[in-house]
Amino acid sequence: MNREEALACVKEQLTEHRYIHTIGVTDTAVILAGRFGADTKKAEMAAIFHDYAKFRPKEEMKQIIVREKMPAELLDYNAELWHAPVGAYLAEKEAGITDPEILDAIRYHTSGRPGMTLLDKVIYVADYIEPGRHFPGVEEVRRLAETDLNEALIQAMKNTMIFLMKKNQPVFPETFATYNWLVSQK
Amino acid sequence: MNREEALACVKEQLTEHRYIHTIGVTDTAVILAGRFGADTKKAEMAAIFHDYAKFRPKEEMKQIIVREKMPAELLDYNAELWHAPVGAYLAEKEAGITDPEILDAIRYHTSGRPGMTLLDKVIYVADYIEPGRHFPGVEEVRRLAETDLNEALIQAMKNTMIFLMKKNQPVFPETFATYNWLVSQK
Repeated sequence: MNREEALACVKEQLTEHRYIHTIGVTDTAVILAGRFGADTKKAEMAAIFHDYAKFRPKEEMKQIIVREKMPAELLDYNAELWHAPVGAYLAEKEAGITDPEILDAIRYHTSGRPGMTLLDKVIYVADYIEPGRHFPGVEEVRRLAETDLNEALIQAMKNTMIFLMKKNQPVFPETFATYNWLVSQK
Repeated sequence: MNREEALACVKEQLTEHRYIHTIGVTDTAVILAGRFGADTKKAEMAAIFHDYAKFRPKEEMKQIIVREKMPAELLDYNAELWHAPVGAYLAEKEAGITDPEILDAIRYHTSGRPGMTLLDKVIYVADYIEPGRHFPGVEEVRRLAETDLNEALIQAMKNTMIFLMKKNQPVFPETFATYNWLVSQK
């Protein structure tokens, strides 16, 4: 599947706003992949499909999580997390994406995971800093991503965790574990 | 063991600075226990002994953690965490404290634990807000502790986690789990 076919495929799944976000993530992911030595073609495809399941009904996502034996813990945390693993599943089933690295980058683009691959990191950071993003802290992550993907990733994850904590929201344990793994690598 | 005997026992283990801190925690714990319905005698004893192991050599603490089969994960995280479970162990072995609620409050006074008891919470918060403490955020926790022990505890844990994250330090997973448990109770 080439870029145009892939974009046409996800366009049907997304709102216009989210489609424009997807293009921003895709362009950013290709730049980051080139900058830090990841596979630009895989980065492009993972970015195009990263939000594939974003607008599926919660009930459908929940059924897929249960039926496909995804981590049941997901259901105890914010439904915002669900579209990532469900998206990886549907990108394979419905759109025929089979590359496991691409599917993993989609699967972990919201939670992260200890042992994140270079491609996982590229997609996570691209999703955070694409040009359509405007929120406190994004500029610092953009600046870090000029030279150091890991520092950018750590900062983005910290911003996200602190944002949730300030609202007394729970934080997915895998995200905490990813933070601990990242800082232990330094 | 009465208050004076207990204080005499821990005084031998502590620097003067830490002994004064211990008295501050003890007085605060008794007040909080009275305010929120915990056992004031147990709070007094747990507070007196909470830092019993604070000045044991790291090597001795490490040996105790391994020999007594405490969570091995402790050794992967900051040694600041070790004196709490080691303190519970030594308070029993050396000072003859046998009450399991008191020992647990000592054991979890630095990490917290999901399912923290009222006494655990009293000791954690008293340690954070005793009158000798002066750092950003402590006043807000003091204010919350006037009326709501859980809110004070959540705020203290968040302050601690965010402080560590801003320095890119790892956070003990049990502390993250405690935070998630606390906000899920609200």
